[in-house]
Amino acid sequence: MSASSPLLAELIDALRCLPGVGGKSAQRMAIQLLERDRGGGRRLASALEQAMERIGNCSRCRNFSEDEVCAVCANATRDPHILCVVESPSDLAAIEQATGYRGQYFVLLGRLSPLDGTGPEELGLHALAARLEEGEISEMIIATNPTVEGEATAHYLGRLASAAGIRATRLAHGVPLGGELEYVDRSTLAHAFGGRQAVE
Amino acid sequence: MSASSPLLAELIDALRCLPGVGGKSAQRMAIQLLERDRGGGRRLASALEQAMERIGNCSRCRNFSEDEVCAVCANATRDPHILCVVESPSDLAAIEQATGYRGQYFVLLGRLSPLDGTGPEELGLHALAARLEEGEISEMIIATNPTVEGEATAHYLGRLASAAGIRATRLAHGVPLGGELEYVDRSTLAHAFGGRQAVE
Ligand SMILES: [Zn+2]
Ligand SMILES: [Zn+2]
Repeated sequence: MSASSPLLAELIDALRCLPGVGGKSAQRMAIQLLERDRGGGRRLASALEQAMERIGNCSRCRNFSEDEVCAVCANATRDPHILCVVESPSDLAAIEQATGYRGQYFVLLGRLSPLDGTGPEELGLHALAARLEEGEISEMIIATNPTVEGEATAHYLGRLASAAGIRATRLAHGVPLGGELEYVDRSTLAHAFGGRQAVE
Repeated sequence: MSASSPLLAELIDALRCLPGVGGKSAQRMAIQLLERDRGGGRRLASALEQAMERIGNCSRCRNFSEDEVCAVCANATRDPHILCVVESPSDLAAIEQATGYRGQYFVLLGRLSPLDGTGPEELGLHALAARLEEGEISEMIIATNPTVEGEATAHYLGRLASAAGIRATRLAHGVPLGGELEYVDRSTLAHAFGGRQAVE
């Protein structure tokens, strides 16, 4: 059928740039839009074009933003004394959605990875250090991922905070809620065991 | 994070018009395009816009086509004597991909459904009857879906063919290949049992 319409074949192929979308689902998506929701398809085309062209990074926190300063940074009701440092906008989104955090963020857009050429400069750590020197922040929450590179990045961030005389904290590691011990990986379990806490 | 960028929030929302895409995957798709594949995102925007605006239906078979007559109908190497009637472009695609069929198609873009106001007119059955009258077609393969409405449509199509003196055939029903009998639904199994064939 794609053979009957080059434009349809092109649409099916272009849909495959979406994560998790293979040939079968791309075909289903394209046909469903054409058959039942051309308005939705047009709106998606326009939203994609606008987003790809106009979304850059906030000059203060490096999160996605089409404005010079993003809405989170510009929000006067958020606590200016706590700064949460994350690797990516997705991590920021996860924290916003799962927690009641009302402080500020700084997005590294990566993690220290000397082999890939990602050093402090690429992660905006000079800007972060300058921000810590401003004196308004009293706690820096380090929320990098629990991977080797994330841990190395966390270590570096900890030194930055300590140089600025700021308290640094990390997300707690441990057994995930609802997880069964026998299915928790060994290092998480060892960590949770070593960090056991007194029952009140 | 979507709170930090209205354009991103709009993109996440617009992505949900795609079948099978909920809020979580829409967010993942939007962020991945922004972080890693803006070229792919722009190409998708343009493919969507072109497809939604320019793809109509072939005047001969009603399949999707941006041209007056689609590439399948215009393909002189396909057998003009066999016509396969399907409900939707997706069914046509499934047959093209699964079988070696090299005849022509007619796409109903629906099925008879008096309650929804879908009658012979909406399914283009006058055009189909006219085509059968042209005298070139010797076999009409009825490939509507094995649903109540599909069966009613098949019945109607069979009468059209018979009025034009054309042999009508239907796809064989039976136990799916690789299926286990105990998991096959009862009516399929009953049908397969009743239609049992001699072993050669
Ligand atoms: Zn910001
Ligand atoms: Zn055609």
